[in-house]
Amino acid sequence: MANSKFEYVKRFEQPDQLLPNTWIVVRLDGRGFTKLCAKYGFEKPNDRRALELMNMAAKAVMTDLPDITIGYGVSDEYSFVFHKTCSLFERRASKLVATTVSTFTAYYIHFWPTCFPDVPLSSPLPSFDGRAVCYPSVQNLRDYMSWRQVDCHINNLYNTTFWTLIQLGGMDAKEAEKALAGTLSADKNEIMFSRFNINYNNEPEIFKKGSVVFRDYELVEPGSHIVAEEADDLAEPVQQSKTQQETDKKRRAKARVLVDHLDIIKNDFWDRRPWLLSNKPGKIPKQT
Amino acid sequence: MANSKFEYVKRFEQPDQLLPNTWIVVRLDGRGFTKLCAKYGFEKPNDRRALELMNMAAKAVMTDLPDITIGYGVSDEYSFVFHKTCSLFERRASKLVATTVSTFTAYYIHFWPTCFPDVPLSSPLPSFDGRAVCYPSVQNLRDYMSWRQVDCHINNLYNTTFWTLIQLGGMDAKEAEKALAGTLSADKNEIMFSRFNINYNNEPEIFKKGSVVFRDYELVEPGSHIVAEEADDLAEPVQQSKTQQETDKKRRAKARVLVDHLDIIKNDFWDRRPWLLSNKPGKIPKQT
Amino acid sequence: MANSKFEYVKRFEQPDQLLPNTWIVVRLDGRGFTKLCAKYGFEKPNDRRALELMNMAAKAVMTDLPDITIGYGVSDEYSFVFHKTCSLFERRASKLVATTVSTFTAYYIHFWPTCFPDVPLSSPLPSFDGRAVCYPSVQNLRDYMSWRQVDCHINNLYNTTFWTLIQLGGMDAKEAEKALAGTLSADKNEIMFSRFNINYNNEPEIFKKGSVVFRDYELVEPGSHIVAEEADDLAEPVQQSKTQQETDKKRRAKARVLVDHLDIIKNDFWDRRPWLLSNKPGKIPKQT
Amino acid sequence: MANSKFEYVKRFEQPDQLLPNTWIVVRLDGRGFTKLCAKYGFEKPNDRRALELMNMAAKAVMTDLPDITIGYGVSDEYSFVFHKTCSLFERRASKLVATTVSTFTAYYIHFWPTCFPDVPLSSPLPSFDGRAVCYPSVQNLRDYMSWRQVDCHINNLYNTTFWTLIQLGGMDAKEAEKALAGTLSADKNEIMFSRFNINYNNEPEIFKKGSVVFRDYELVEPGSHIVAEEADDLAEPVQQSKTQQETDKKRRAKARVLVDHLDIIKNDFWDRRPWLLSNKPGKIPKQT
Repeated sequence: MANSKFEYVKRFEQPDQLLPNTWIVVRLDGRGFTKLCAKYGFEKPNDRRALELMNMAAKAVMTDLPDITIGYGVSDEYSFVFHKTCSLFERRASKLVATTVSTFTAYYIHFWPTCFPDVPLSSPLPSFDGRAVCYPSVQNLRDYMSWRQVDCHINNLYNTTFWTLIQLGGMDAKEAEKALAGTLSADKNEIMFSRFNINYNNEPEIFKKGSVVFRDYELVEPGSHIVAEEADDLAEPVQQSKTQQETDKKRRAKARVLVDHLDIIKNDFWDRRPWLLSNKPGKIPKQT
Repeated sequence: MANSKFEYVKRFEQPDQLLPNTWIVVRLDGRGFTKLCAKYGFEKPNDRRALELMNMAAKAVMTDLPDITIGYGVSDEYSFVFHKTCSLFERRASKLVATTVSTFTAYYIHFWPTCFPDVPLSSPLPSFDGRAVCYPSVQNLRDYMSWRQVDCHINNLYNTTFWTLIQLGGMDAKEAEKALAGTLSADKNEIMFSRFNINYNNEPEIFKKGSVVFRDYELVEPGSHIVAEEADDLAEPVQQSKTQQETDKKRRAKARVLVDHLDIIKNDFWDRRPWLLSNKPGKIPKQT
Repeated sequence: MANSKFEYVKRFEQPDQLLPNTWIVVRLDGRGFTKLCAKYGFEKPNDRRALELMNMAAKAVMTDLPDITIGYGVSDEYSFVFHKTCSLFERRASKLVATTVSTFTAYYIHFWPTCFPDVPLSSPLPSFDGRAVCYPSVQNLRDYMSWRQVDCHINNLYNTTFWTLIQLGGMDAKEAEKALAGTLSADKNEIMFSRFNINYNNEPEIFKKGSVVFRDYELVEPGSHIVAEEADDLAEPVQQSKTQQETDKKRRAKARVLVDHLDIIKNDFWDRRPWLLSNKPGKIPKQT
Repeated sequence: MANSKFEYVKRFEQPDQLLPNTWIVVRLDGRGFTKLCAKYGFEKPNDRRALELMNMAAKAVMTDLPDITIGYGVSDEYSFVFHKTCSLFERRASKLVATTVSTFTAYYIHFWPTCFPDVPLSSPLPSFDGRAVCYPSVQNLRDYMSWRQVDCHINNLYNTTFWTLIQLGGMDAKEAEKALAGTLSADKNEIMFSRFNINYNNEPEIFKKGSVVFRDYELVEPGSHIVAEEADDLAEPVQQSKTQQETDKKRRAKARVLVDHLDIIKNDFWDRRPWLLSNKPGKIPKQT
């Protein structure tokens, strides 16, 4: 029984390789997480257990997929950056998206009981959708990352003030919404400080900055600022010997994957961690 | 602090809507399942628990995503068919693939302890990749489904004979491979019957046919064969009233999702279940 | 001197094959033809020489590209339909669009002096842009053709009335526009008939219907209406022998390419010319 | 008569915008030019009239489409580069390709009698196909241009030697092919010099280097070599005021479009013409 009669259907699959020499960002978002937050009683405005679960899943994704150089998470979304020289799955969009989302989901479900020991999962289970976007230059990539972190800041400031008005101020949702309509950042800071004696700056970094995931090597001395164009140079693919590739792979596997809550908009973060853009593993820090 | 400076990066996201009026097949495949089978000690040539886990996940996917009209699974892969009128996620490929794969993965991990109570999961966790393919006609779609089921048959006959030669015949892998080189189906049947007194036809249907997942309505009397062209008609989108759409949705939600192991190559399967192509829910069968 | 160092740039070319088993429509549109009409003094509302030039170019396109089964033109646009079995240029969108537009442009420039003997061309020359769209079913394709012909009707009725108000009624453009604001088809017919004694039905067919271009075979007796689904059947690709393909090719080359001004919305046009959808050449009509 | 019933077909058109912030190269190629060369008696190995016709068409394309910053032509192909900030046609691939190819074809046909006064055109007319490719970095773009020019060199050296063996050496095509099999550049130079006293270096630049088309501004003093990464900087889009944009447009329109036959592989060509990458018009040179 030959398969050939039906095999023609394979030709309907259309190629979806992403443009070479561009940074690939795969972003995943929780599906229907508003409902899910209510169902499982997530704390408002931020549930630390839920964020830690996201971060555990993200760390595992970076360990399983070493082609990812950095991840950034906020709320129920996570962005993962594949280096512009990445050739995983021949850069096929659907495979990159599916694999990243599937791996993330697997760990999210797997680690749930660790983060929510008293809250059993039930149908419909948490799930994520995803997409891939290409960025041609380091400037574009950094602007993407900045966009997400600014978004984190804007949303968290709003949500923190909103829920303070409700939880401490006794307002209902409509009243809080009205109280915040048209306010600027300074106004929100002022509301919290003057009415509730809360200094927003003292809020936890994980809430204010989101979470960055990356491999941990020795920091480089903060020198002169590396402009994006030099960074493009830094990021330029260099033909490596097989030996060098193997060495890099091993060093990457040895590196600890770190979750931190840092400013990724300013240059300092990137200048001190040149491996994020160069894709060349740094030195493993000495254990202290 | 306005977000506008960075928001331009949104424009780099490229549209990926799939052609309207075509059947969308999302197929997912286990990543590195050869290693995984060894790690968790899956039985050879088929591990019934592993297949049942796949089927449980597939049933849950169809319940969570009612736009899927039928699924077909074999080994570590599953195909899900979205009706050609489907407008979920505006038919965006990455969202359809990511959501299907993520939902499937979530249930796979979640139900693992049910199917493998004594086998705890550990890193790297099982994960799946995926892709979406469009088929313009019913004939193309059915040929796709036939392609997968023929593949199931060919692989299962080979694997069953191969592992029989090893497990009952005492061969090692190389000897078994050599013994099967160049053999046709009839030869393999003959090897199993004459040497080991095994009738391949008596093998379990789940191994020989794979698994079909679909909503269960009352079967239609087997009438004259509906040719694919009429089926295209049957499948033609008809403008529905909102009320009708709501009614259909409820009936779909009420229908039981069934897993069975049937021939989906012949017309009979499709003729008796017109709702699979028409997307019009049938009658809920009386409980017996 | 080896070329290999630079040849990597070839990999940046991204595949753009159109989905198999779908009808491909390439539509081209004149660029900046409003200016061009003024520059070369085209008559309003329709310039017969300009339309005939479009038709001459379209006929030549169909002769040079036998994969096209039918064309439809109105004003400064032309649509060309490649049969759904077409494999020209491996169905690559950019090649199909570029070749169709380039061939059309070549003949448009070449035949210009024939249609406008006293009007020499000068920079910037007339040019066309183009695009390719896929239609999965015969119904979709016929609806596309109907869409263009209905557009022709609506625009021509408007333009004819508009220019009658100016040319015979002495209005200026603003007055004519105002007079027509909010009018329906019946109103426009009435304006022309009551004020200027013009019966729109007597306007030339080329203006009212646009132009259809196709190969001329013996008409089939108008029988029962072939519904679109049977037409999909008619259009189903059938594996042909090489000999049959060669015979078809010769018959196609022998057939006269005809320009006519017919109703392509009703079934009759398609029922009597089954070769348009089947892609099987009919009988060459006897010369009379 | 409403058009709405059919208008749904517009939704089948799929978006094809090219990735922002990348260089767009549209390359067009003559269709069936081997036949065409024979039909119109083009001289071998190079027909100067045919090349000049290509160049005249290319100059006109650059004049009509000021978004193009540079073109490069060899034989029957021409590449046109749209600056990475280009937003013409919203960067839609089919429109960019179709318009470039159509404009080129129009002038090719129009200028034919100028270049071939005694050779009337006849069906099938010359036509061109085309494609668009995106390059993310200046290095990638310059490597593309280098790739084409190296190709020009390799082909021209081969063809020149090949036709010398035939035209002066009395060989037939097979003998010439055999004589050249396995030869390197140096061997071909040697054959021509020792047997026919021809110094390949003295061949016309248009044959050896191909043709570059660009706007002519005052050259910049050859300073230090600008590395590609700085060039990326140079090429970085800068938000311009409307006034600045208008000024640039006028300067671009005033600039003479030049055809020359220069080395575009080395840095010098690009260093002295920074406007090619920066898209900022230079100074119009004083007439001498």
